[in-house]
Amino acid sequence: MEDSFSPYFHFVDNELYCEKTPVKKIAKEFGTPVYIYSKNAILEKIREYKEAFKEYPTLICYAAKANSNLSILKIFQEEGLGLDIVSGGELYRGLKAEFDPKKIVYAGVGKTDKELIDAIDTGILSFNVESLMELDVLDELSEKVGKKADISIRVNPDVNPKTHPYISTGLRKSKFGIDMEDALEAYKIASRKKNLNIVGIHCHIGSQIMDVSPYEEAVEKLVQLVFKLKREGIELRHIDIGGGLGIRYRPEDNPPHPKELAEIVIPYIKETGLKLLIEPGRSLVGEAGILVSQVLFLKDKGDKHFIIIDSGMNDLLRPAMYQAYHHILSVEKKKEKVIADIVGPICETGDFFALDREIDNLNRGDYLAVMSAGAYGFSMSSNYNTRPRAAEVLVDGENFYLIRNRESYQYIIQPEINEKIQGEVK
Amino acid sequence: MEDSFSPYFHFVDNELYCEKTPVKKIAKEFGTPVYIYSKNAILEKIREYKEAFKEYPTLICYAAKANSNLSILKIFQEEGLGLDIVSGGELYRGLKAEFDPKKIVYAGVGKTDKELIDAIDTGILSFNVESLMELDVLDELSEKVGKKADISIRVNPDVNPKTHPYISTGLRKSKFGIDMEDALEAYKIASRKKNLNIVGIHCHIGSQIMDVSPYEEAVEKLVQLVFKLKREGIELRHIDIGGGLGIRYRPEDNPPHPKELAEIVIPYIKETGLKLLIEPGRSLVGEAGILVSQVLFLKDKGDKHFIIIDSGMNDLLRPAMYQAYHHILSVEKKKEKVIADIVGPICETGDFFALDREIDNLNRGDYLAVMSAGAYGFSMSSNYNTRPRAAEVLVDGENFYLIRNRESYQYIIQPEINEKIQGEVK
Ligand SMILES: Cc1ncc(COP(=O)(O)O)c(C=O)c1O
Ligand SMILES: Cc1ncc(COP(=O)(O)O)c(C=O)c1O
Repeated sequence: MEDSFSPYFHFVDNELYCEKTPVKKIAKEFGTPVYIYSKNAILEKIREYKEAFKEYPTLICYAAKANSNLSILKIFQEEGLGLDIVSGGELYRGLKAEFDPKKIVYAGVGKTDKELIDAIDTGILSFNVESLMELDVLDELSEKVGKKADISIRVNPDVNPKTHPYISTGLRKSKFGIDMEDALEAYKIASRKKNLNIVGIHCHIGSQIMDVSPYEEAVEKLVQLVFKLKREGIELRHIDIGGGLGIRYRPEDNPPHPKELAEIVIPYIKETGLKLLIEPGRSLVGEAGILVSQVLFLKDKGDKHFIIIDSGMNDLLRPAMYQAYHHILSVEKKKEKVIADIVGPICETGDFFALDREIDNLNRGDYLAVMSAGAYGFSMSSNYNTRPRAAEVLVDGENFYLIRNRESYQYIIQPEINEKIQGEVK
Repeated sequence: MEDSFSPYFHFVDNELYCEKTPVKKIAKEFGTPVYIYSKNAILEKIREYKEAFKEYPTLICYAAKANSNLSILKIFQEEGLGLDIVSGGELYRGLKAEFDPKKIVYAGVGKTDKELIDAIDTGILSFNVESLMELDVLDELSEKVGKKADISIRVNPDVNPKTHPYISTGLRKSKFGIDMEDALEAYKIASRKKNLNIVGIHCHIGSQIMDVSPYEEAVEKLVQLVFKLKREGIELRHIDIGGGLGIRYRPEDNPPHPKELAEIVIPYIKETGLKLLIEPGRSLVGEAGILVSQVLFLKDKGDKHFIIIDSGMNDLLRPAMYQAYHHILSVEKKKEKVIADIVGPICETGDFFALDREIDNLNRGDYLAVMSAGAYGFSMSSNYNTRPRAAEVLVDGENFYLIRNRESYQYIIQPEINEKIQGEVK
């Protein structure tokens, strides 16, 4: 089972490899903690999605928030994908990675004027508008910029994606989108705005979804609305069903294949003849990345065994934040097993990677890999405890590339000491 | 009630001031989100602690993790305080802020070799050692560096601080410290190490503690151990009781005064004649800081009212992470009140500041202040969604100083594009 966690992270002679590169080699060269991504694992996922949706005109817009490293974005750009952004910073990254603006969609309940203006100026594929007030503001700002904005309305289909409450975004009581029964009126308002072009409809029901049936429920509602809009003379170009497909965190997890998603949604979309947009994030990069750490200390307290590693919740927030499970492998397989808490150096009890986990009997200096850490890993990391954020490395066969430097202390304090600073320390 | 949330954040003619400076003036000058700290609120807390402990030789070591901005550290340094650090990065900051190394204590279960070597080299007041293996490693590295290391053992008094489980650090099953019944043996081992000097004993029972009785329980155990050590011929110089005093998050909160802590612990410490160390973090800076945001959009969904602001969980993680309550005030008082969810722009349902909260009827463009955000606020912030981290401003009467620049997009991606980067984007 462990041997086959992923074909891109596999054991050769009891040693963990990323593609054709020993993980240990990278850890030794760049130090730990280090995020390691498999380029071919990402390419494989892209192929799976393309293949699954090939029978229907579909634009896959990678959700940058999952992992926004420029070199990762560049992979998607080179494969011809679009980009789903939620901020001016992600727009900046998308343009750096040379995405075609006409493949960029922009969601988010709280877009600032500055962010909206930049995106209007850029001329993106669609603003996925989340409130009536945003419609007003976008119209005004478009007038100011002197460019029309292409928009979709994010509707809230009120379906339960059966996932962690923090990442269930399609429920009625959530802050996202406009409720189904108010959507028609919102479209009518939008259609009267001089500086807005209606181009689509958008929804996103949640993340880490392990069963595609909520998509069917959502798409059915969306398509009904599309027909209602048509009867009102409001014609769309695309339906954007968001992201959300789950990935394998536990060895026994069995997330849906993109094909299952395609098979369940395309029949509905077909009836409308509209182009399909999807916004996968986690499922494109999650399993393609691992977080590699080194064991600092072992410690026994009563009947509890602790393995203390050099990564913390600042590097990977998911266990502390969502009580998320991540599988953990020893980079060099050991014969003996132990039951241990695998914890980080941060001064909080919440700073753990695994509790009471059966794991190889690791020693000080050994390396271990936190699996399925490619999505919402580095992108949520922080400098808590003034810990420099991890290095990031991209592997392609036998080759590997540093794609983000480990932060230096100098870099971390730089905004506190440059010439503009008027405080106590200059 | 609202008028008196703090003498340093008070209303003048219905407008919120930090000391003698209108909060709005700062928000307009530096933009939002912005952390605003009151220098005199910090000085007042320092005075309270000094006053409370003045009858007994006490070194107050500010816990840098709560807020490690260099200009904030400098305030403590100038007031003669020591520093409690948990990483090489915090040591770097402490030295930048010119703390006397002989006033620096260094805790943490996961210190790397590099971090230990740097701190040995610096010659700090005490390594607060958290495991037997750390004793071995510290001894070896001290030999290598050619300098003895002064150490304390962090013991785990197994008391319940009655706070959030993530910040209860003194319970037996937690990763921190060495259990009481193993501590004597640990000291004996330490006493045989050639390159270690035993100087003290350390504990830290948790954070946001609202009742001082667990301190009494802990100190009583510590003092018993000190006498036991003395009988074994192991003499200490100091007892470090850690940090943890709570602060006021809700208007009705009534956290203990440093005096109460002093009164309960000093009688025990006195019996030993040893110097006292304390490591307050939150209680020195928490109430002295606010996070100021601007309202971007209002939105109604069914019977729910949303106020969408330009700060997110990336700026202040506590509500999402610990379901923490923060009081929120409109920067300009309004006559009408509403019940609203106050939420951020991030694409997660967990991105909220308050749920179903009664608050002034805010409009687009209005400013609001998230109170008691000075500790574990900026220090836990991240760039999730490629959001630049907030600016930080220090107020001193009518004067205010930018003490950290708002991050630029260029700064954020800098580690991904410099000359060392070998990835796809150069
Ligand atoms: C609007 C939108 N689209 C796409 C995504 C990506 O979701 P996932 O990473 O689960 O595929 C998200 C995630 O929050 C989102 O909010
Ligand atoms: C060892 C140690 N000392 C001091 C503190 C500071 O605690 P507080 O901010 O609650 O005063 C902490 C917090 O985690 C800690 O771990």
